[in-house]
Amino acid sequence: MRLVTFQVKNPIGIFNRIGCLSSNCIIDLNSAYASYLHYERSEEDIYTLANASIPSDMVQFLHLGSTSNEASKKGKEFVERGLRRNEQLVGPKSEQITYRREDIRLLAPVPRPKSIRDFMGFEKHLETALKKRGKPIPKIWYEIPIYHKGNPNTVAGPDDPILWPSYTEKLDYELELGMYIGKKGTNISKKKATEHIAGYTIFDDISARDRQMAEMEVSMGPAKGKDFNNSNIMGPCLVTTDELHSKIKNLKMIARINGEITCEGNSGDMYWKWEDMIEYCSQDETLYPGEFFGSGTVGGGCGAELDKWVKPGDTVELEIESIGILKNRIIRNSENK
Amino acid sequence: MRLVTFQVKNPIGIFNRIGCLSSNCIIDLNSAYASYLHYERSEEDIYTLANASIPSDMVQFLHLGSTSNEASKKGKEFVERGLRRNEQLVGPKSEQITYRREDIRLLAPVPRPKSIRDFMGFEKHLETALKKRGKPIPKIWYEIPIYHKGNPNTVAGPDDPILWPSYTEKLDYELELGMYIGKKGTNISKKKATEHIAGYTIFDDISARDRQMAEMEVSMGPAKGKDFNNSNIMGPCLVTTDELHSKIKNLKMIARINGEITCEGNSGDMYWKWEDMIEYCSQDETLYPGEFFGSGTVGGGCGAELDKWVKPGDTVELEIESIGILKNRIIRNSENK
Repeated sequence: MRLVTFQVKNPIGIFNRIGCLSSNCIIDLNSAYASYLHYERSEEDIYTLANASIPSDMVQFLHLGSTSNEASKKGKEFVERGLRRNEQLVGPKSEQITYRREDIRLLAPVPRPKSIRDFMGFEKHLETALKKRGKPIPKIWYEIPIYHKGNPNTVAGPDDPILWPSYTEKLDYELELGMYIGKKGTNISKKKATEHIAGYTIFDDISARDRQMAEMEVSMGPAKGKDFNNSNIMGPCLVTTDELHSKIKNLKMIARINGEITCEGNSGDMYWKWEDMIEYCSQDETLYPGEFFGSGTVGGGCGAELDKWVKPGDTVELEIESIGILKNRIIRNSENK
Repeated sequence: MRLVTFQVKNPIGIFNRIGCLSSNCIIDLNSAYASYLHYERSEEDIYTLANASIPSDMVQFLHLGSTSNEASKKGKEFVERGLRRNEQLVGPKSEQITYRREDIRLLAPVPRPKSIRDFMGFEKHLETALKKRGKPIPKIWYEIPIYHKGNPNTVAGPDDPILWPSYTEKLDYELELGMYIGKKGTNISKKKATEHIAGYTIFDDISARDRQMAEMEVSMGPAKGKDFNNSNIMGPCLVTTDELHSKIKNLKMIARINGEITCEGNSGDMYWKWEDMIEYCSQDETLYPGEFFGSGTVGGGCGAELDKWVKPGDTVELEIESIGILKNRIIRNSENK
């Protein structure tokens, strides 16, 4: 399933809903499941059941595991069967069940992850970055998966702009694959690791390179170099493991700036695999549903590697095979309403 | 006020409550306010009002700002007046209003902060740490407040053990002052910064030094060196700004290992002030109530500086004047139930 969090604006306010992408529309999974319970199973108290199984918050949804998963499948199948018969679908109280893309706002699949860890999974990216500074890859990089942590309060989605911070001259994008944890665990072995993955998305780790380089001299990692509003862009959807598992180690990854291809990579080039990262992080540390892992930048997947820099007004488009396209326009923070 | 989050165990489950430390007891602020509304003001629907004003989650409590603050003061004053008269205080439905310390479990004041940033505020700590590696303090340290981010899922409190991770030979404590954001804001000036502070606590930033040093070779900062269960210990209470503001730049800071003093420092030695950190972080980035800032280790406030290492079974006791004592025993993770 291709899960999304979307926003619906109506006269009594703005509401977050969980949906899935279907052929020509977005299905509201809560209303879809309520309809399934009403029309197919004549259940009483359908809204209590639907709200308990499909809440509006994706972290809670992931915590529910097989409950939310099975309810979503039943709702989606019910609605898609109706769509194939060209039925006019509405819920038991005339709720809207399907939305056109242009009528809603897509948020990041998990608008506020429980945590953000960003790894350095690709050898080529690190090699190129360090070569510019006249350094080889440290031996330790081959021994343990290195990561830094992001700020979950700065996550943005497919319909948000990239906000150029006032303090940087060198803003950059990073083409990464993203992964969400779907099941709690501690000391998870590599063998069991994939059971803990909910699914995958596209991740654009926006970075203020000049500030990042300055901060990293103290070797505590990037801070304001990667911490500012809308600096962690994720989406367009969370593709669940069952749809992607067999292909995850061979996905084409493409970056385009203003429509022109600047990078063509492949997820199979990851030196560190998701299983390694999960085993490493979960050592003496509990992982929870809704935590986010970034793969690190694919080789050539950022402007710093190519010495080609974006500017306000540019469009950054990241595409990963079988997931979709994450496209955001850069604006000066002062232009943001 | 000295705010705490505490846990009450009863036949229908375990409940988190918000309280404040009084002379000989802990006052349940929600029940205290409900009692005030009932006995003093004969209000109807007191529970709806009390629950809306004093929720059980400290992040929500801080979001409520003056609403929760004023309700807490009224509840606390009402109860303390009764205590002075030696009244047997119970709520309108016989709820317990005061607890003895030994009857409850103290959690960290904010059990799950919205984020954790840990600064390097003290020059002496950095100087000593870098001297051991034959390096001077980089110039950039004097220009911007350097920080790294912690994982909010690994926070523990006064009644929790320090868990020695399986992968380290060199576990360490760090004596730090902690600060919580109490008011949302972006691009906050130094002048306005203190308005955004909810209060202060003691912070023990537990670190696996061998792993931290290995990871930092890649200059992305510490990862598993500071990320494991119970690695961010905070408490015993959040002392609100009104009680501490005039003294915050002159608080004695003491560390004791198994009762023996290993460090005596002062918060006034901070090179970087809270106002600097807030101004810096909030540049193009929104700060939210419930975010946590650590001061960085006070000079001499960790074992690595003194080359004196703790071991399982030891007790780490951190004391900061006007805040209290944060005391935790180290146990091997395998001993944890």
